[in-house]
Amino acid sequence: MSIESLIRAIPDFPLPGILFRDITPLLKDAKGFRGAIDLFVERYKGRGIGHVVGIEARGYMLGAPLAYGIGAGFIPVRKPGKLPYSKLSESYALEYGTNSLEIHADALGDGDRVVVIDDLLATGGTAAATRRLLERLGAKIESFAFLIELEALKGREALPGAEVISFIKY
Amino acid sequence: MSIESLIRAIPDFPLPGILFRDITPLLKDAKGFRGAIDLFVERYKGRGIGHVVGIEARGYMLGAPLAYGIGAGFIPVRKPGKLPYSKLSESYALEYGTNSLEIHADALGDGDRVVVIDDLLATGGTAAATRRLLERLGAKIESFAFLIELEALKGREALPGAEVISFIKY
Repeated sequence: MSIESLIRAIPDFPLPGILFRDITPLLKDAKGFRGAIDLFVERYKGRGIGHVVGIEARGYMLGAPLAYGIGAGFIPVRKPGKLPYSKLSESYALEYGTNSLEIHADALGDGDRVVVIDDLLATGGTAAATRRLLERLGAKIESFAFLIELEALKGREALPGAEVISFIKY
Repeated sequence: MSIESLIRAIPDFPLPGILFRDITPLLKDAKGFRGAIDLFVERYKGRGIGHVVGIEARGYMLGAPLAYGIGAGFIPVRKPGKLPYSKLSESYALEYGTNSLEIHADALGDGDRVVVIDDLLATGGTAAATRRLLERLGAKIESFAFLIELEALKGREALPGAEVISFIKY
C-alpha cells in the first residue's frame, strides 16, 4: 500500500473550508510508518546533521524517529508555556488563527547543523517562525522536511533560499 | 555520560512546588537519545507488539522512535480537539489540574497488542485514562513504559494488574 493512500482527507477540520490531511492511518500502519520515516532517513543520512528539530506536535511523530534513524539528537519546538527552561519565542500567522512557538535557549549553538521537520507545509508560517528561532541561536538549517506539501498555499515562498523537501504534494 | 545525568530538574514548573524533570537535554544529545530509545527497543522487541501508543506530547518523542525501532505502528493519544476523525474521550485528574485525552475510534481493534509510553509516571492519571480508552477499543495492553518514575506519587497503584516499567526512579 502506498504512503499516499494511507493519508485521510477530513473536510472542514479544524474550521469550515479546511481540508485536513490526517496522517494517523499512516502512522498506525507499521509498514507505512517505517516507509515514511525511511524516506527521510535515506534523504538525510550521511549529511552531517547533528540535530532534528520537530515542530509540535505531529513534527515530533516524524522527527523523533528520523533523529533516531540517522543518529542525531532531537529538539522540540513547542507551543507557548510548555518548555520549562530559559527560552526564545517567535509568533506566526497560521492557516487558521495565530500562535507562537518556543525553543530552549540552550537547545542549539553556533554552527549546529539541523533539519527542521513537520508533517505538512501549508502557508509556511510555523516553519518560518522556527527558522527565526534557529537563526537567533546561530544554528545552520540544512533543510526543511515535510511529508506533505499543499502547493497552492505557496509555503516555500515563506522560506526563501532554504532547501525544502516534501514527498506528497496536493 | 549516563542517561540520568542528562535529565534536568527545574523547580516550580509548571506550578510552585513542582520539581519538573526536563528530558530535553537528553533528547538533544544524540548518544543519550539513542541510548534511551534503545532501552525501550531492547525491552519490547520480539514480544509481538503491533502498536506503540504515545501520550501527548513527550510520549511522542519517545514512542514514535520506539515504534520505528521495533517495527510497530504508532498511535497518538491526544489532548482535546486535536484529532480530526471520530474519537473516544476520557478525563483524568493531573498532578496539576484536570484535562481529558482522546483517541481515534478506528485507531485499534479487538486483541491488538500495544505498549503505552510516556516520559514520566507521576500519579498515573493520564496512563489510567489511556488504559480506559484502549480497553474501550478492545486492545490488549502488554505494558506501560516510562523513562522516569516518581515513586512517591505511587502511579503504579493507578494501573493495577498491568506491567509497568521505568528506567529512572526518583
